[in-house]
Amino acid sequence: MNKSVKYDSKDISSKMVKRLTKYLRVLKDIKKEKDSVNSVELATKMNTTASQVRKDLSTFGEFGVRSKGYDISHLIFIIEHILGIDETNNIILVGHGNMGTMISSNADILGKGFKIIGVFDKDDKKVGQYIPNLNLKVQNVNEIEKLINDSDVKECILAVNRNVAQETAEILIEYGIKAILNLTSKKLSLPDDIASVEVDFSIKLQELNFWKKYKKLRYENN
Amino acid sequence: MNKSVKYDSKDISSKMVKRLTKYLRVLKDIKKEKDSVNSVELATKMNTTASQVRKDLSTFGEFGVRSKGYDISHLIFIIEHILGIDETNNIILVGHGNMGTMISSNADILGKGFKIIGVFDKDDKKVGQYIPNLNLKVQNVNEIEKLINDSDVKECILAVNRNVAQETAEILIEYGIKAILNLTSKKLSLPDDIASVEVDFSIKLQELNFWKKYKKLRYENN
Repeated sequence: MNKSVKYDSKDISSKMVKRLTKYLRVLKDIKKEKDSVNSVELATKMNTTASQVRKDLSTFGEFGVRSKGYDISHLIFIIEHILGIDETNNIILVGHGNMGTMISSNADILGKGFKIIGVFDKDDKKVGQYIPNLNLKVQNVNEIEKLINDSDVKECILAVNRNVAQETAEILIEYGIKAILNLTSKKLSLPDDIASVEVDFSIKLQELNFWKKYKKLRYENN
Repeated sequence: MNKSVKYDSKDISSKMVKRLTKYLRVLKDIKKEKDSVNSVELATKMNTTASQVRKDLSTFGEFGVRSKGYDISHLIFIIEHILGIDETNNIILVGHGNMGTMISSNADILGKGFKIIGVFDKDDKKVGQYIPNLNLKVQNVNEIEKLINDSDVKECILAVNRNVAQETAEILIEYGIKAILNLTSKKLSLPDDIASVEVDFSIKLQELNFWKKYKKLRYENN
């Protein structure tokens, strides 16, 4: 770990984590054009203030050289480290219906730092199916426990039917899974030590619908 | 529109919109058990402070009866109105690959207020396919313009391959689409008057991975 990293994960809020993922995107974008960036420019791209940027970044160490701005590669390095994507995280995909297939056939949508090492379904017709993209066969769900024991995998993408989402999550946790990306649109009740993040299409549509109305008002009235 | 609603959409930030969708979920949850809620309890469920709750809700009107708390049904009514989901919003689904099929075959994941009135793909093998769930056939993309002209649809779910996402979005906008739910994991460059919200799996995985590390530290060290 780089000696200038002083972050203590207890300092970090949920909003901060979301902001970090945004910094990462913005920085990678700027890096296509140059090697360093000052807080004013970074703030503009982040849609925030320069003082907020300085505050955010100072949480993680001392990067800024006043005259030259921040070294972009170094910032990216630090943020990827904090997010734990500077190394490969093994992950399993549970459920190989439409959502699961969409993921397994476009595995690069997972981005840097993740590797699917197992794909599972309970449907006999799907088990054995070869996924060229991943060089893996779909396995029966009753083989999940063995894979978890044989590997260090702690993370899973849950893409089963929503009506079995809760029970499946509970079984996975029993087997040792510690982090769940929940794509089922079912709210899960999980123990406190389990990390989970959900993708809920209905919430995204609600946001979109608001902005549709808002922009209509704004652009028609001005 | 209810007379107690005084909201001006220009007051609303992106964070506020996200919070509104969360209020809606939390309120629907509480409503299963009772009819009114005070700001302290609502704050606990929202993971915020009572004063923030009072401030948020006062943006939209005067609902609180000090002794009895907020009327939950009324709050839900107002929030659904602000989000524009108290009426049915027609929407089209463009792209019927794995992601599109996942949506069309589980249309209730869109939640209240949305109705898919057209599904389109450019692949001749998919065109004509019947979707029982929606009572619709997949149409050729060259029929999109006609549907947009014949109906008032302004909103679309973009589920095409990421390499054609930008050009498809541009064509849709030319046809009159004003709001895009982007499921392609491709960043889109769009005009200012177009609303768009994206679902990006890689960002969600980055967040999840952070929380996995964080919870590991927290629960192993305590």
